[in-house]
Amino acid sequence: MLTANKRDTGIDERFKCAMRRLASTVTIITTEWDGRRYGMIATAVCSLGVNPPSLLVSVAQSASLHDPVLASKHFCVNLLRVLHADLLPPFSGQHTGESRFEFGCWARHEVGLPFLSNAQASLFCKVDDVLRYGDHAIVVGRVIDARVAEEIEPLLYQNGSIAAAQSIS
Amino acid sequence: MLTANKRDTGIDERFKCAMRRLASTVTIITTEWDGRRYGMIATAVCSLGVNPPSLLVSVAQSASLHDPVLASKHFCVNLLRVLHADLLPPFSGQHTGESRFEFGCWARHEVGLPFLSNAQASLFCKVDDVLRYGDHAIVVGRVIDARVAEEIEPLLYQNGSIAAAQSIS
Repeated sequence: MLTANKRDTGIDERFKCAMRRLASTVTIITTEWDGRRYGMIATAVCSLGVNPPSLLVSVAQSASLHDPVLASKHFCVNLLRVLHADLLPPFSGQHTGESRFEFGCWARHEVGLPFLSNAQASLFCKVDDVLRYGDHAIVVGRVIDARVAEEIEPLLYQNGSIAAAQSIS
Repeated sequence: MLTANKRDTGIDERFKCAMRRLASTVTIITTEWDGRRYGMIATAVCSLGVNPPSLLVSVAQSASLHDPVLASKHFCVNLLRVLHADLLPPFSGQHTGESRFEFGCWARHEVGLPFLSNAQASLFCKVDDVLRYGDHAIVVGRVIDARVAEEIEPLLYQNGSIAAAQSIS
């Protein structure tokens, strides 16, 4: 049952295999810089705490969003709903730059951030701290505003495919 | 439908409401220090990257696990499966300290870390960096070993209750 500590696979493979089992909510992180919008699919998002309201995202230095987020010092985390499955291809490689925003219903918040108007939730953040590690930047966002949809049906990513959660309690 | 930007609720409440919509895999983070085991339920875990294999966890400074993790410089992230729902009460307040480990099948890894032997996955980490923010420590772990169960049925937490993922692709 357990393929634990197999000596024939390296830690890199075992790590990837383990991470496929960390089911996560799919998000689109957005920002705007120099009149252009940037957006990318991300699952490496987690809550930090309520004092102050904050979260963190992990962004690869190679991502097109990386430099604009650090330059604008603002970003928005849009939690996707099951109905947003069709946004995954354009926001994860099929399209680039502004053309990604032709897919989905996008609006602009007063702080100058693009947000998905029917997202599960949109969290508007100011960059408060950055920790560089390996080839990623861990970006701490202080949440300055949030929009929330009442119906709860976040889009999940698990084992390389999309999923929805069913309550079991 | 949208309760967006309601002026009658503060950002703290909207933040909490939004975070309840970030469905996450439930984990138990463990460590050992000075001959004692420590463990706590956590959902603030995310993958960092493969170069090097790494993840991060967010730990409140008030958590009993906080000081032992920083002292031992090692921790294990155990991803729970649906069958582990009964571990939530003891590991989130009903019990404290060593007595928590009377629940579940625990073993000890050669690096001196307790792990749940039938976890969805167990990731053994060395603390590589720490960023303090607000009342939390963001702890970056370099993954030095991993155990993985083949069957994929992670235990999720969404909107204050437990859930399981159903593939929709």
